[in-house]
Amino acid sequence: MTGTGHRPQHEHQHQHDADGCTVPVSARSVADQLSFVLARVAALPPVLVSLDEALGLVLAEDVRSRTDTPPFDNSAMDGYAVQHADLVRASSEHPVTLPVVADLPAGTSHNPQLEAGQVARIMTGAPIPDGADAVVPIEDTDQGTDTVTIVRAPQPAAHIRRAGEDARAGDTVLTRGSVLWPTRVAAAASAGTSSLRAHPAPRVAVISTGSELVTPGEPTRRGQIPDSNSYLLAAAVTAAGGVPIRLGAVPDDEITLRSLLAGLAGTVDAIVLSGGVSVGAYDVVKAVLAPLGTVWFGPVKMQPGKPQGFGRWPADADAVEGPLIFALPGNPVSAFVSFEVFVRPALRRLGGHTDLFRTTISATAGESWNSPPGRAQYMPVTVAGEGARRVVRRSAAGGSGSHLVAGLAQAVGLALVPENVTRIAEGDRVTVMLVT
Amino acid sequence: MTGTGHRPQHEHQHQHDADGCTVPVSARSVADQLSFVLARVAALPPVLVSLDEALGLVLAEDVRSRTDTPPFDNSAMDGYAVQHADLVRASSEHPVTLPVVADLPAGTSHNPQLEAGQVARIMTGAPIPDGADAVVPIEDTDQGTDTVTIVRAPQPAAHIRRAGEDARAGDTVLTRGSVLWPTRVAAAASAGTSSLRAHPAPRVAVISTGSELVTPGEPTRRGQIPDSNSYLLAAAVTAAGGVPIRLGAVPDDEITLRSLLAGLAGTVDAIVLSGGVSVGAYDVVKAVLAPLGTVWFGPVKMQPGKPQGFGRWPADADAVEGPLIFALPGNPVSAFVSFEVFVRPALRRLGGHTDLFRTTISATAGESWNSPPGRAQYMPVTVAGEGARRVVRRSAAGGSGSHLVAGLAQAVGLALVPENVTRIAEGDRVTVMLVT
Repeated sequence: MTGTGHRPQHEHQHQHDADGCTVPVSARSVADQLSFVLARVAALPPVLVSLDEALGLVLAEDVRSRTDTPPFDNSAMDGYAVQHADLVRASSEHPVTLPVVADLPAGTSHNPQLEAGQVARIMTGAPIPDGADAVVPIEDTDQGTDTVTIVRAPQPAAHIRRAGEDARAGDTVLTRGSVLWPTRVAAAASAGTSSLRAHPAPRVAVISTGSELVTPGEPTRRGQIPDSNSYLLAAAVTAAGGVPIRLGAVPDDEITLRSLLAGLAGTVDAIVLSGGVSVGAYDVVKAVLAPLGTVWFGPVKMQPGKPQGFGRWPADADAVEGPLIFALPGNPVSAFVSFEVFVRPALRRLGGHTDLFRTTISATAGESWNSPPGRAQYMPVTVAGEGARRVVRRSAAGGSGSHLVAGLAQAVGLALVPENVTRIAEGDRVTVMLVT
Repeated sequence: MTGTGHRPQHEHQHQHDADGCTVPVSARSVADQLSFVLARVAALPPVLVSLDEALGLVLAEDVRSRTDTPPFDNSAMDGYAVQHADLVRASSEHPVTLPVVADLPAGTSHNPQLEAGQVARIMTGAPIPDGADAVVPIEDTDQGTDTVTIVRAPQPAAHIRRAGEDARAGDTVLTRGSVLWPTRVAAAASAGTSSLRAHPAPRVAVISTGSELVTPGEPTRRGQIPDSNSYLLAAAVTAAGGVPIRLGAVPDDEITLRSLLAGLAGTVDAIVLSGGVSVGAYDVVKAVLAPLGTVWFGPVKMQPGKPQGFGRWPADADAVEGPLIFALPGNPVSAFVSFEVFVRPALRRLGGHTDLFRTTISATAGESWNSPPGRAQYMPVTVAGEGARRVVRRSAAGGSGSHLVAGLAQAVGLALVPENVTRIAEGDRVTVMLVT
């Protein structure tokens, strides 16, 4: 990944935008950066999982039925297995009484041979005995056990589920690439399978950087604030189908961060860092990672979230590649937007999903706001109303200001304002990426 | 719950419906049964959870900010804290050079008193020193450390985030009843909170009944099939926000089942059983639970899913009420539909959610099918197309036949056919409950 565009900040040319921020002329578009990320991410190698662990994973093999499903002709009702020819004239006016020669509960392997004029009591799911060609539901009988009186003629084959009616032995019941939702886990069980090859949920270390950060709930002195990003991003990893390992906050100290990251290689699939990616003198993430030559840093034409870093920890001595590294800006709104735009699709791809992106809807702007020229804006919004009448408003009075975490907490979506649009007017139609 | 409608099956009058099944005249509508269930379910008492466990739970208290957020004026940029009056004429033609009297990294508690003509280097998030009233971004300087040359005049207050700008100490940042999605977990962290009072995820035991059931993957003989319902319903519990305890399959033996259920009292919030709720001679769930007088059994006017049971395990000696009991039909499609229609809303309510129901959409039937008179039909369907052009088709050739688990695995929704509708014709608009 060396030479993919990382170069010292001072080589950039700059232009000033509306809110006083600068956008380097060489900044990447969001689409280019997303392509850059996704081109370097592939589905994790399949692992064997038990059916109890399979929910939400993506199947990495076709699943075939081991037997016919159902494996034998069986009763769809509680009632009596009969020969329908014995009962063609049965009715409430002309009930027919026949001897009950067997009692067949579910699970029985018993197979009495029914002769003409004989019936067997049978429960739902029990195998149809040889000689029987219909089932009379219990409601059409007097429920007798020695003899039974039947008041209604069954159709031929009534209430018999045929072997293989649902699937034949060898039939594909689930295809590779399927997301294992509950009915699919059940279909695998029904097919006689106890474990599946699936792409594992990606394991993702989450680290906040910044000497100002303390654990929430601990006392703060001047200059300190609670770490919220590690909680934000760990929860977002879970919501994206990953398994977060939340390592909390580390100070702006290169030795500490480098040794933490080195210890993670080989144990996680990805590392999500926040903070320390800008041009400041203490930007520890950039200081540790940029010299490796395997992590790109640079500006992306978006607001918030301009400074981004992406790459991998270097391969080990056996050439096994290191975990993916996402270096996100430290402000919570910037970190969240960056996660949704770049990290979430990548984690979905690691998990084997082909449907990588959030649902978007169209809605009407309920108020006006500005967007910086030359940058795609992701505005946290609330959504009111339904269908074509959906109206969005900024979830924080201050708009997309990147530290407004309490306002962000009310947002259910991010309004997407294209690079070339500098103002959303009340009544405009906007596209909204739903994030909850 | 004694006397709420449980009475022996033989007291029912019956009428025959189109597919040969019988519907007792006394059968409840789906709406009545759902009201019956939900009237007996309340949110679980709140528990204290750490922020790492909070995702997806429902908050049971208001969360107030412990301090101003941010707690002190701080810099929004890497740059220099200045007195803007010193720089009103600064420009690239007329750069201004000033002494740097302090270096303020994030996390510092240092508060140098800036005099006129002095500046301090400052990093994003560091406290604004007394005397400073603007921040000049690093990009508008030569990045000097002893002296700095500034080429652009800042606006007063530029790039300063004010204390309390996001929330004031004591402000409510999250309200009781809020679902704790990632940005809300982060807001609690930002507010200085390390734990929250929330409604716990319901703990739900899942048990399949039936002597025909074997663990998937084990060999089957005539009469036996793999247990799929315990996998189906455990995964559905997880998808509904609950914590499943999958106990597998038990045979149709009253002593075994009674002792298993008795052992669960006090350890789980709900028990979901499948099978054994019909009128058959070996219907073990009904045989064990009906005599307790605390579990209602009866028919519901729906297809599939007609036989239903719902109630509670009896209170213990200290009058602590027992777990909720959902007794679902044993056929996989019936069990799934029953779960979606009755169990899922109840589990959501246990978890403190007020939004109990699945999303429904409107779509066009891509084919015709029949529905039994007097019963609400839940037809598993696939959905193709987008928006107003969405088209649904039955996901299994056999339609809503209740054992077609492989077909059910492809369904993304259940088409809802009202009681009084007996046929859906191609081109009809139908309402679909999305279930994935």
